Parts: sequence; C-alpha cells; structure tokens
Amino acid sequence: MISVDTAIKIVEDTIKPLPVKTIPFENALGFCLAEDMQSDIDMPPFNRSAMDGYAVIAEDTANAPVELTVIEDIAAGHMPTKKVSHGQASKIMTGAAVPAGADAVVKFEETEDLSVSNRVKILRPIDKGRNISSRGEDMQVGQKVLCKGMPVRSQEIGILATIGKSQVKVFSAPTVGIISTGDELVDVGLKPSVAQIRNSNGYSLAAQARRMHAEVDLLGIVKDTKEEISSMMQWGFRKDILILSGGVSMGEYDLVGDVMKDFNTRIYFEKVALRPGKPVIFGKKDTTFIFALPGNPVASFVTFELFVYPAIRKMMGFTHVHRTTLQASLETEILVKRKRREYRPAFLRMHNNTWMVSPVEWHGSADLLATTMANSLLIVREDAERLVTGQLVDVIPLE
Amino acid sequence: MISVDTAIKIVEDTIKPLPVKTIPFENALGFCLAEDMQSDIDMPPFNRSAMDGYAVIAEDTANAPVELTVIEDIAAGHMPTKKVSHGQASKIMTGAAVPAGADAVVKFEETEDLSVSNRVKILRPIDKGRNISSRGEDMQVGQKVLCKGMPVRSQEIGILATIGKSQVKVFSAPTVGIISTGDELVDVGLKPSVAQIRNSNGYSLAAQARRMHAEVDLLGIVKDTKEEISSMMQWGFRKDILILSGGVSMGEYDLVGDVMKDFNTRIYFEKVALRPGKPVIFGKKDTTFIFALPGNPVASFVTFELFVYPAIRKMMGFTHVHRTTLQASLETEILVKRKRREYRPAFLRMHNNTWMVSPVEWHGSADLLATTMANSLLIVREDAERLVTGQLVDVIPLE
Repeated sequence: MISVDTAIKIVEDTIKPLPVKTIPFENALGFCLAEDMQSDIDMPPFNRSAMDGYAVIAEDTANAPVELTVIEDIAAGHMPTKKVSHGQASKIMTGAAVPAGADAVVKFEETEDLSVSNRVKILRPIDKGRNISSRGEDMQVGQKVLCKGMPVRSQEIGILATIGKSQVKVFSAPTVGIISTGDELVDVGLKPSVAQIRNSNGYSLAAQARRMHAEVDLLGIVKDTKEEISSMMQWGFRKDILILSGGVSMGEYDLVGDVMKDFNTRIYFEKVALRPGKPVIFGKKDTTFIFALPGNPVASFVTFELFVYPAIRKMMGFTHVHRTTLQASLETEILVKRKRREYRPAFLRMHNNTWMVSPVEWHGSADLLATTMANSLLIVREDAERLVTGQLVDVIPLE
Repeated sequence: MISVDTAIKIVEDTIKPLPVKTIPFENALGFCLAEDMQSDIDMPPFNRSAMDGYAVIAEDTANAPVELTVIEDIAAGHMPTKKVSHGQASKIMTGAAVPAGADAVVKFEETEDLSVSNRVKILRPIDKGRNISSRGEDMQVGQKVLCKGMPVRSQEIGILATIGKSQVKVFSAPTVGIISTGDELVDVGLKPSVAQIRNSNGYSLAAQARRMHAEVDLLGIVKDTKEEISSMMQWGFRKDILILSGGVSMGEYDLVGDVMKDFNTRIYFEKVALRPGKPVIFGKKDTTFIFALPGNPVASFVTFELFVYPAIRKMMGFTHVHRTTLQASLETEILVKRKRREYRPAFLRMHNNTWMVSPVEWHGSADLLATTMANSLLIVREDAERLVTGQLVDVIPLE
C-alpha cells in the first residue's frame, strides 16, 4: 500500500502529453498551446492616438492658449495624408494614426473648437509624446507573444485573433471510456428493483471528465463476471484513458484487478493509503491508461479528482497539473479514526477575509448527496489525530 | 456618471432569469436547476453491507471467538433468500442487502474461513448495527434532494442519475450576439494594412461568453456609420444579449449610443466611473439587453467581467451572480492617478499560505498582451491615493 502523494507522483511521472493537433483558434479555449506564437504585426501598428483630440507639435503649445490651423480630420481606420507643420493641427480620433510632424495629442476637453474659422484653440501646454502610444509598444513583428504550454483563456483567444493565427496547434484532450461494473446496477431510465440501484458513478465521472474537455464515451454497465468485464474492456482499449468504476475491493466478486492482470496490464499501483478510496488500480495496457476506481460514489468522485484529474491535465500538455491547495480555518472539530490520508467533502467559504472550512455531514462514502453540499476537499493528513476548531487545514477548492 | 457598484446593481436588478427548458440530464452540467427534485427511491434501498464479510446476529459474537454455520452467499445485486437465525451467518459482499435476522456484518479480516465444514469462525465480538448502512439513511422516497437554483456540477449529475431524472428543467443560457464596430477592423484571416488592426475583441468576448455556456453568434464587423451599425443591430435584436464593441467614447465617430437612441432603446446607464472602461452603455430594446463596451481590448475584457458576467449568471438562474472577491497582499506599490474605480489586470499567487498580488506591467488599456500574464483583477477603490507594498487589496480571481 503506497501513500497518496507517491501514487499521485507515479501518475504524473508516467503520463506524457498526447499528440498535437491543429484546430481553429476559436475552438482552442480550455486547451494548452503546443507551439510558440510570434506576432506578424506591430501593435500599435503606427503611432496611435490614445484620445479623441488634436495632433499637434508640443513645442507650439508652450505659450498656450494658442490657436492652430486644422489641416485634416483623421478617423480610425484611415491614414493621415498631411504632415503637421508649426502652427497646424489635425483633428484625430482615438485609435487613429498620428500624422507625421505631430508629437502629441491634445484631448478635446483641453481645446476650444473654432471650426467656423477652421481653427482650434489649445488651452494648455502639452508635453511631447502625450496621448500617443508608440508603434510596437505592446508587441512587435517577430516577438514571441504566446508560448508552448500556455493555457488558452479568453485573453489568449484575443491575442490569437490579433496576430491572425486562425489555426493553432494544441495538445489533444484525451478520449475517455467509462465502464460501470456491478450486478446491482441499472441504467438511469429504469426503476431499480429492491436489490438494485441506478448507475450514478458512470455519469458523474463523465461529467468530471467532460468539464475538462475530454471526449467521453459511456461504455455502459457490465455484470460482475470476468467475461463481461473483459469483453467491454477491449472496447475501452481504443481510448486514451479507460475508467472502471466498482469491482476493485477485496471480495471474491471484485474482478476488475484480475481481468486487468489477465490482459497483461502493467500495474503501477493497486492500493493507496487513502480514505475514501483505498482500492484504486492504475495501470497501462498498450497505449491506454486504466484507472479502476472504487464503486462507492464519494470514493469514485474523490479518486477521480486525485488521480484522473492530473492525468488528463498532463495529457493535455498543462504545466500545472494539480489544483491549488489553500489553507482554511476549521469550523468544527474532526476526530480522526485511522492513520490514513483522508479527503473529506467540505464547504469552503470566505468570512472576514479568511477562508473557513467545515466538512459536510455525511454517512460515509456511499453518501453522494452529502457532496452536493461540498465545494472542496478537506485534507486530513496521515499524522493528524484530532483537528480542533480554528486550526488551519489544507483544502482543495473544486469548481 | 455613476459608480461601478451602482452600475452593477442596476444590471443585477434589471435582468431576470430566462425561461425554463427541459434537457437531458447529462447536458445539464454548468446550468442551474429550475425545479426542486425529489428522490423516487430510498438510498440505500435496503439495509446494506458496508463491508465484504459475514452477516451475523451481534449477540452471537459476545463470547467470540465463535463458530457459525454459513447458510447463504449474497452478492451485490442479489437479494438474500434466507433468514439468519442464532448460530448462523451469511457471507455477504459490500453493497449487498443484509439478510433478515442479521444485525451486524463482521468483515473478512476479523473472521477465519472454515469453508470445508461450511462454517466460519468469528474472531472478535461485534456491536449491533456495525458495518450496516440503514435503508434510507442517505435519502428517502419523496425527500427533496436538489433545489431550484442549485448549480449542476458533477455531484448533482450523480444525484440526478441516482434518482432517475433523465430529463431536467434548467434555466436557459442566453443567446448572445456580438458586433465589432470600427473602420480600422479587419477579420482574423486578413493581413491588416497599415491603418488597420484585426478584430480581436469579438473573439475574446465570444470566448468569455462561451465559457459560461452562452450560445454565441459573432455577427461580424461593421464600419463606423449609423447605417451599418443600425442594420446589424437589427439582427442582434433576435438575441437575449447584444454586445457591441467600440464606438462608445466621446468622438463624433462614436455612433453606437446614437443608434441605440434612434431605436428607442431604454438606456439604464451610459457612463461609469471606471478605469479602464468609462464609456459603457447598458440598455434594453424589446427583450434584448444591450451592452455597448469600449473598443480598447483590456477595457472590453474588464467590462465584460464586471457587467456582462453577472447578467449572464442572472439570466441562467444562479443565486450567486458575482465572482468571489478576496484579499491579497500587494507585492508592488501602485500610484493612483485619478479618483475613479480602477480594475487592473493582476497576477495572484499563493505564497506561504497568503494570497499575494501584483498588477501586471502594461502600457494601458489597449495592451491585451499584458492580460495574458494576469489571472485576476486588482481593485483600486475610488478613495485610494497610494497603495503600498504589503497592503491588503481586493482581488477578483478569474478562471
């Protein structure tokens, strides 16, 4: 039995990023760039006015108020055609190119329009360079503006548009197959008989993976027989990740581990000192990584977050594969039963600028309803004996 | 000119949730429930074994070690057929129904299998009720398990599956149309001439809205003429939200506000004491809410987060329409130029269990590249004069 930290490190070290694919940049949101990107333009592309006003020679305004002759009217998207000489000004809009000769823009509020006489009065002196953004100030032709490994958010989409990258290389998101095992399971559309329950893990695991952009295929429910499990697993070997739910504890009807071994799956670990979720198998068959997770709904939920989450992030090329851990002040005492790392569904809130956390009330690892009250996982370390109110504890916020 | 807080409150008070729609539960991830949900089953559906082991009468183990006769073998998904009487036990798997008569489950590790003689040795006494989850302990038939207004996450998907809710009522996500205005704009596939830039705001705004599940339609680029703007706006009136980018500052070529008034749009506000982003118009034409945002990329990005984000959340039925604000310790001094609320793209990090924040270096509100270094918005309040290193400031983390 290995520690949670060791198990997570094994997952992280074993899995490599998936192949790169080229997609339209608009679809890249949530993916990770697989190439550096250079700008093909200067931004601004010219000395640009940051204000609506008048482009002038700063020197001319030294003894303001002063009147200047307006020689042109420059809108954004149009280039100036006249050079500004001493005694002259050009009316200019925000975003337009500053005409040759001019070296400052006086905003409208500091001028008085004398348009009947085609002249403008500049009310106050202005410094050279004022209200002008220099060509190439934000980015220059050839400059590396986005790097391999960066996650694509709205801002990066904006930059990709700016530099005209309509197709981008990103790391692929994994294909994920999910198999739910158990004689007791029926599908959502059916009414369970007294010995049955509906398959919930398949769907919650699918949601956990889809949220990360994985392409999920729910392969369905199989009975607790070696034959059914192995025939469905063969379908799963077409996927980058195969998740099995249930069938991994100690009983003789828990067969997933046996079937994995029959397939000559390379097993990296099969028991983790963890609560909930001790029986977790991580293996690899050909190019498919297999996670066999416990059938208890909360254990299934938690072990996905601990092991499958970083696996998907790593495959997608992200540098930061783990969620942030933060510290919060515990709102209620926790008695620790055994010396095994524990992840408790918990409610995290901000109160007086401090993070406060309390484990949600639950009846154990089958109680999925309790997790609907949770927005985080509270970590109880192996060496903890009793956690008291007000103590700082580690918490992983979930979205 | 109104304050940011007032403007946000106007948006929040004006917008109402959109109509309810019924969708397959698997597609409900990220939406908000529009109905309360009752369970149609007890969970567990029977007194359930929490362990692999032997179902016994606790009283029989008082003088353990003791040998019992094994009368049945109960797998998960199968109902027991025999009642356990004194001196008897049934072998049972995790998740299976505890047979009548038995009132505790002894786990395998605390037994010794004497299977040749069809008997089992119980090594230690056990308390009544141990390792049994009582029928209905987690949820009961008719119990309200999910409430109207709850966001659907992976956990809720699991609950919906558990209670067989294959179709669910959620509040609709808005349809969003986006128009980019400006003579200087060309589309991403084109190489801008010297007076032009590519349309980036349209795409970054689309990404900001899509991330929230809105159905986005990029209506395209229009020139700075009343005719083009108004003819495109008419297409936009088919949407729940119409966003215009650019064309809202003071210059004579900034026409969006004029066109909105020509359409008899109800205007709620048109200037907000905000930096970047003073010119922001919020209005309503028939059933379409219109946000006219500034053309500067950073101002466009920030004003979406401040005004459009809560609008979409409110339409989608969420109770919490705003992002969390937290406090962080400032890593570098900030000199405040003017008494207007400022939102600075900033980098937030956790260091020694404290949030630390530093504004990213930028050249002003056209510098979208700077925002790729940012993961948050740092709030500079109206009354701030100088923010010093180590001071606590408010920060809005972005995802």
